[in-house]
Amino acid sequence: MGVCEKYYPKEAAAPSIKTEVVPGPVSKRQLEELSGRFDTRPAYFLADYDKSLGNYIADVDGNVFLDLYAQIASIALGYNNPKLMEVLSTPEFKSSIVNRPAMGNFPQKELSTIIGNILKVAPKGQTHVWSGLSGADANELAIKAACMYYMEKKRGGPKVEFSKEELTSVMENHAPGSPNLAVLSFKRAFHGRLFASGSCTCSKPIHKLDFPAFDWPHAEFPYYSYPQDPNADVNREEDDRCLKIVEDLIATWKIPIAALLIEPIQSEGGDNHASKYFLQKLRDITLKHGIVYIIDEVQTGVGATGKMWCHEYAEIEPACDLVTFSKKFQSAGYFFHDEEFIPNKPYRQFNTWCGDPARMIIAGAIGQEIQENNLLDQVNRVGDYLFSKLEALQTRYPQFFARLRGKGRGTFIAWDLPDGASRDLLLKKLRSSGCNVGGCSDQSVRLRPSLSFEEKHVDIFVNVLEECVSTL
Amino acid sequence: MGVCEKYYPKEAAAPSIKTEVVPGPVSKRQLEELSGRFDTRPAYFLADYDKSLGNYIADVDGNVFLDLYAQIASIALGYNNPKLMEVLSTPEFKSSIVNRPAMGNFPQKELSTIIGNILKVAPKGQTHVWSGLSGADANELAIKAACMYYMEKKRGGPKVEFSKEELTSVMENHAPGSPNLAVLSFKRAFHGRLFASGSCTCSKPIHKLDFPAFDWPHAEFPYYSYPQDPNADVNREEDDRCLKIVEDLIATWKIPIAALLIEPIQSEGGDNHASKYFLQKLRDITLKHGIVYIIDEVQTGVGATGKMWCHEYAEIEPACDLVTFSKKFQSAGYFFHDEEFIPNKPYRQFNTWCGDPARMIIAGAIGQEIQENNLLDQVNRVGDYLFSKLEALQTRYPQFFARLRGKGRGTFIAWDLPDGASRDLLLKKLRSSGCNVGGCSDQSVRLRPSLSFEEKHVDIFVNVLEECVSTL
Repeated sequence: MGVCEKYYPKEAAAPSIKTEVVPGPVSKRQLEELSGRFDTRPAYFLADYDKSLGNYIADVDGNVFLDLYAQIASIALGYNNPKLMEVLSTPEFKSSIVNRPAMGNFPQKELSTIIGNILKVAPKGQTHVWSGLSGADANELAIKAACMYYMEKKRGGPKVEFSKEELTSVMENHAPGSPNLAVLSFKRAFHGRLFASGSCTCSKPIHKLDFPAFDWPHAEFPYYSYPQDPNADVNREEDDRCLKIVEDLIATWKIPIAALLIEPIQSEGGDNHASKYFLQKLRDITLKHGIVYIIDEVQTGVGATGKMWCHEYAEIEPACDLVTFSKKFQSAGYFFHDEEFIPNKPYRQFNTWCGDPARMIIAGAIGQEIQENNLLDQVNRVGDYLFSKLEALQTRYPQFFARLRGKGRGTFIAWDLPDGASRDLLLKKLRSSGCNVGGCSDQSVRLRPSLSFEEKHVDIFVNVLEECVSTL
Repeated sequence: MGVCEKYYPKEAAAPSIKTEVVPGPVSKRQLEELSGRFDTRPAYFLADYDKSLGNYIADVDGNVFLDLYAQIASIALGYNNPKLMEVLSTPEFKSSIVNRPAMGNFPQKELSTIIGNILKVAPKGQTHVWSGLSGADANELAIKAACMYYMEKKRGGPKVEFSKEELTSVMENHAPGSPNLAVLSFKRAFHGRLFASGSCTCSKPIHKLDFPAFDWPHAEFPYYSYPQDPNADVNREEDDRCLKIVEDLIATWKIPIAALLIEPIQSEGGDNHASKYFLQKLRDITLKHGIVYIIDEVQTGVGATGKMWCHEYAEIEPACDLVTFSKKFQSAGYFFHDEEFIPNKPYRQFNTWCGDPARMIIAGAIGQEIQENNLLDQVNRVGDYLFSKLEALQTRYPQFFARLRGKGRGTFIAWDLPDGASRDLLLKKLRSSGCNVGGCSDQSVRLRPSLSFEEKHVDIFVNVLEECVSTL
């Protein structure tokens, strides 16, 4: 029925926990040693990837966990995927590692195919791609593209030359050459931790403290009531309330807003979904004000929501301008549809490597596996199965399954616990019982299995979950 | 004598140019096709890396060039290096690609060794490393670390908690949580093209136009007279003039300066060298004012100057605080020596991947090859040979070899042409004659061969160079 049989005939039949606590004694000792070289404070355990397979991750203590976190939502097909392993022996992959090209100046003869494979699974309406190295990098590059586009339009088009004043002031980091432009993002958003992406991020203080930020605004992101159907009216009111804030900020912000950056589901910030209506209205507003519309699909992209790109559910018309990706695609960058987003002169969007072709080849292979194995169908089927099981648990333990969300969004599912302490306790119990699960926001649980997650894994997880919840 | 015999017994004996112009007809046609998917305007030609070997790069027209540019100074050991190829079949490399870990949360059991191999060739005085993905990323991460360190000290040490005001203002992108801090860099500097690194970059307007920058200052970087020995006095005066500007900016800049960022040789900006005296005085100044001292070794690092890290020539005491790397190391990040540069709480310097272990493994292998083959000795020997040949050409064609620089700095050599047009013409002639060479600044030629460059390659290059210069 699913791909697991094909990819992972030797996958574990169930989790297996050998130690009383996680991390176990071997993890603890080796993490302690590693801590002289690396910040191990955030480490859950020391992983043994040789012994990890499919949907199961192993640690150095011999524990084997069913993995519903998948490297912070960044493993698309499961561990030690045989099809990705095959890619490693192709000449173009080997060359991309050993002869890493400066792709802008010395592109390789295979580049057209490498990019073409990525474009085969591009979001509807997006025909071009620019490659980067991480989610934060993708967002920063997209913001640069948006600002350049905005200024080019303001200047009168791509053929108008830079003014003398622009050419001199930019070397002083001053306007007009370094223009005072803002990017509008949202409260509880997460777009990365560099300086522009960090200014757009607004989920937790710990991500942002002690380094400079641009004076950019955060609008409010809708906070829906669940289940959605009986709450349709109140949720529409919530959309309209937030849309008004967006319009007000655009009208009143102290510097011009060049771009709007949004996740279709705020992931790190708590799995807050944006409705089709909200995302379309933002398109209308951005068009009206000449603002570039950027969708951040770093966490939501590459299949886990049941579509290749989550914002495709919203069928935004006309298509949004830039779509950023990373994580499950292993590579990073942004899609776009209009050649006007290519700056008017060369060397404006440029750097030494212009992406990593080895990682781009892997992205292409992941896209191909998703298509050939109809993995989106599987994700939708398994997601529905998982959601209905969680609804059943919700009926029995309503206090521990508040705001269950992600219905019809594949396995991209989350819910709330009463508070952070009970959420953290649940995650700990789950891990000690063999299920590796992540949290988001202050009191939410987020499920992020890879696309190879199947009904049999759902059954195991839901049993463990019920056991853990019943002892909370 | 050299490693070429060992690495590349089948390396070309000489360049071979088949087409009347470069790029040739096949390159042109295929670049035109590629241009629908990728910005090909900066492309020199379409490369065939399968046919590239050692110090020679091939293109799709069958041209084979002696490569003194090496992917913008980012190929350490030559093309298709057999030792790096061997790394690709190791289990830890394969796993690092296919199971790319979120190294902060789920570090792999091999991580200590991977980092340890990088630290084996760390700059003197630097005992820790934090990993990133590109030169710009490395600088941005180092700037973040510097700002966090600066604020922690100002707050009264790592044990003092964030204030309520900091925790709320940071979510608005405002001080004190998002502090108004500056990084001091230099005119003609190049540190990357993202938003903080871009604000530090000051080489050409085209790198910076049309996107916002922080209001950060650029001091003047010494501009020496050559040859250096007879100009020692005037160059010392130049150092003092620039040091005074640094001190004045620190005293008068509108916001506190948290960090000073400098390349030991400004590379993109024209191969402007900083003297031992200048770099030491900056250490004194930064210590006096409590400013973090960051050395950017993105282009100068990993052996081409004849030391593993160029700033080691300056024997700075006490060691500078952070040293960034990328390019020839294939991986990226910063070295540091003091645990105080690890932020006081986890998840402050953090992101999904925390670097790329596959590229980190390659970095370790490159470091090992440099050590085992005494490549620094080779670079110094070949560099001296090359420099003396260029001095001879300078005697014959002084107008085309102004300010010849890089004596005693391995193969990291540059000189000036009378103007940009003659420099561009020379580079074009060189390419058409089989030598791939890059420029920097407005009118300089920069030599950046890989560490496998030998005397036989010098002879070929200098002959071609003389031929081209004689027809300028």
